Amino acid sequence: MAPSFAINDGVNGGRITPPSTTGRFASVYSEVQNSRIDHNLPLPSVLKNPFKIVDGAQSSAAGNPDEIAKLFPHLFGQPSATLVPGGSDTVQSHQKLKIGVVLSGGQAPGGHNVISGIFDYLQERAKGSTLYGFRGGPAGIMKCKYVELTSDYIYPYRNQGGFDMIRSGRDKIETPEQFKQAEETVQKLDLDGLVVIGGDDSNTNACLLAEYFRNKNMKTLVIGCPKTIDGDLKCKEVPTSFGFDTACKIYSEMIGNVMIDARSTGKYYHFVRLMGRAASHITLECALQTHPNITIIGEEVAKIETEKMLIQMVETELEKRKQEGTYKHIFKGQSHFFGYEGRCGLPTNFDSTYCYALGYGAGALLQSGKTGLISSVCASPNAFLIVANLCAPVEEWTVGGTALTALMDVERRHGKFKPVIKKAMVELEGAPFKKFALWRDEWALKNCYISPGPVQFTGPGSDAISRTLLLELGAQA
Amino acid sequence: MAPSFAINDGVNGGRITPPSTTGRFASVYSEVQNSRIDHNLPLPSVLKNPFKIVDGAQSSAAGNPDEIAKLFPHLFGQPSATLVPGGSDTVQSHQKLKIGVVLSGGQAPGGHNVISGIFDYLQERAKGSTLYGFRGGPAGIMKCKYVELTSDYIYPYRNQGGFDMIRSGRDKIETPEQFKQAEETVQKLDLDGLVVIGGDDSNTNACLLAEYFRNKNMKTLVIGCPKTIDGDLKCKEVPTSFGFDTACKIYSEMIGNVMIDARSTGKYYHFVRLMGRAASHITLECALQTHPNITIIGEEVAKIETEKMLIQMVETELEKRKQEGTYKHIFKGQSHFFGYEGRCGLPTNFDSTYCYALGYGAGALLQSGKTGLISSVCASPNAFLIVANLCAPVEEWTVGGTALTALMDVERRHGKFKPVIKKAMVELEGAPFKKFALWRDEWALKNCYISPGPVQFTGPGSDAISRTLLLELGAQA
Repeated sequence: MAPSFAINDGVNGGRITPPSTTGRFASVYSEVQNSRIDHNLPLPSVLKNPFKIVDGAQSSAAGNPDEIAKLFPHLFGQPSATLVPGGSDTVQSHQKLKIGVVLSGGQAPGGHNVISGIFDYLQERAKGSTLYGFRGGPAGIMKCKYVELTSDYIYPYRNQGGFDMIRSGRDKIETPEQFKQAEETVQKLDLDGLVVIGGDDSNTNACLLAEYFRNKNMKTLVIGCPKTIDGDLKCKEVPTSFGFDTACKIYSEMIGNVMIDARSTGKYYHFVRLMGRAASHITLECALQTHPNITIIGEEVAKIETEKMLIQMVETELEKRKQEGTYKHIFKGQSHFFGYEGRCGLPTNFDSTYCYALGYGAGALLQSGKTGLISSVCASPNAFLIVANLCAPVEEWTVGGTALTALMDVERRHGKFKPVIKKAMVELEGAPFKKFALWRDEWALKNCYISPGPVQFTGPGSDAISRTLLLELGAQA
Repeated sequence: MAPSFAINDGVNGGRITPPSTTGRFASVYSEVQNSRIDHNLPLPSVLKNPFKIVDGAQSSAAGNPDEIAKLFPHLFGQPSATLVPGGSDTVQSHQKLKIGVVLSGGQAPGGHNVISGIFDYLQERAKGSTLYGFRGGPAGIMKCKYVELTSDYIYPYRNQGGFDMIRSGRDKIETPEQFKQAEETVQKLDLDGLVVIGGDDSNTNACLLAEYFRNKNMKTLVIGCPKTIDGDLKCKEVPTSFGFDTACKIYSEMIGNVMIDARSTGKYYHFVRLMGRAASHITLECALQTHPNITIIGEEVAKIETEKMLIQMVETELEKRKQEGTYKHIFKGQSHFFGYEGRCGLPTNFDSTYCYALGYGAGALLQSGKTGLISSVCASPNAFLIVANLCAPVEEWTVGGTALTALMDVERRHGKFKPVIKKAMVELEGAPFKKFALWRDEWALKNCYISPGPVQFTGPGSDAISRTLLLELGAQA
């Protein structure tokens, strides 16, 4: 029997000191981790020069606008904001801000880069500003547990996976008492703004906080950031949630390895389950990256089985065929679950750059007095096509904010309307699914397996972008 | 519930055509896979010029030499062989050979490179030679199932993971009838030599075949190659088995990711089990690469529990402490098994280069008339120290062969002596374990986690070598 590892939850842990420190703490980082710390992140050109905010048209809601308007009387209808070149750099750089940031929910590669993006924005555009990191997720806001994020503090986490800089948590600010606690905290810290990095629920929560602060005539603005490896928080203005790219590439590496294993022995049938909730974006993306024989997309079939149940079903069917004399081989099922391995990987070049721009843009939105928006970094389809050609025009990316209320619908819970950001499911009429549907019969029979290999940070493959994003933006992937 | 994948065993599969072919078959390889195909492999300098073989001293056995001598009357005592500069290139290049190669047992990254090493040796030093690949492991020898390996056939597998070029199998050539079948096959194909790529059992089998052919006055020579991700086939002349480097790096990437996950939430305790049989080299190497809180090395503790049993034990203990009032938190165990994911990954630069040299050297040994040896590629400690400094002097590696009988002892099975290559276990007095033992208390309490990140093929980290090998060769790792 093989030996085992136990890994502590790190209660007393955290990275103790920047790896540049001499002595044995320098050994806390691997060579690859170390090389990533000083990785140069390109910024969209609009963020490299003086900019001004241009408001778009009035927004509505994803559904039931009347109910959303009632729930968000101060914020409903807000226009989206876009940063364009122009404006006065002098004004921007004379404003000192106090900003808080919180990581909410499950980890996704790139979270640290959002924070370093906010930090660098403040350093460069609002000298003398202060950035506080709330510890352990929204509970940190309620309990006023925070740390001041300094250049030294942030340094070792640049371009690193995980959320361990300030940790995350799944608590929600829901009850009147909890909103009051949040109010007390932001007033105690005299916060001009708060950035909530999270998924659909956390961004709904961010918008509720923004409405609450605005209603109380408080100065604290709230900006959300789209985080989830599941990829189900997206819309026209938010083309993808961060972490999706990295997690899918890690899972695809593992799936590709297992495929080559299967092809090498002819002995096992591998059944892989992937992390993800209701939406199947991860599975679809990994299928497009690796071409498995059979892929089950939850949005297409009503009932989804786990990998172990699937093995049993195949066993039962083959046993039946054996007795009928139509099957003669031996079936060996091998089950896998790829989940936790992908949430905290080193972010890919795409996620690193995307997150940094999201954070940098969030700083810009706060400084421009915006609240209740989600930071949105977009690339025109053309821009992404060029990215696909390995020449990343990050410079051309657009930066701005989208009204969170515009993403919302209501759900009736316990007789009350509750605002929710609709999860983006896999669209059966969307380009990624259609590509999959076009090829799956061929993949089923011909073993067109692709083994993507490990994530690369330099050289071939290092600028690859998820198939989902490429196809959704109109490229051939 | 998350959706699932099923991956076929590839009975009708295999890579259909080289990826250079235009059209959609080009899409069968990922960008990273494609970039590896033409990766330039350095050769030890002795293999780049005319060489001659120098024999060492007479060898003995790892144990019970008298019994080994009885079992291998023609081969026992053979000297090891070393390639040194000199000799006549003309003689070498005028000899046409017919060589067979077989992959035996579980996959290990680099197997394809051993084959391409043999092939390139024959192309360059024995023009007009033929290389046959036996399909599906030793059964392919017995059933005479083979394919002629041509330049086009081999091309898409260069530097690629898996054993799918000719597949592997776990059959053994054991009974007199099976030896007779092997005899018929090599005579039918008029083989001058056979290379057996496998672990301890397969190499024992290779030696038995060599003895059998020699005893029958057949011309067919047999050379072994040290393959196993488990790392338990090694000795002074064979510093490591191939695949160990890649597999440990893949597992370490995953362990490192899970560690950062643990540190980010403070919610889970992760328990990881790793592939491997009796020996714990993989676990020790991964511990040295990642610094988990607790590591169980099988060679040190008598009883090894699986990860799920460990979780139960911790739960029971903490429940007891809870009732005593000494523990107040919530324990959430999360179990992982990392195994199949690591056997077929793209080989690291180290495994790619090492395997290519092993194959190239095997060709040289066969052409020099050697049999019953295992291909051995060594680096002097000094050479490896320089490798550790990211400047790989592959040129200085020594190439040769070690008498397989020298690695053997006997075991009594069913009243008969059976030759076995002794598995190399983790040495509790060896440098890797001692380093681990020195630090483990610190790692237990202080969370010195290292997250190695994905295997890199270019740039920082791409020339890293396993800690085990570095420490065994006297370097600081």
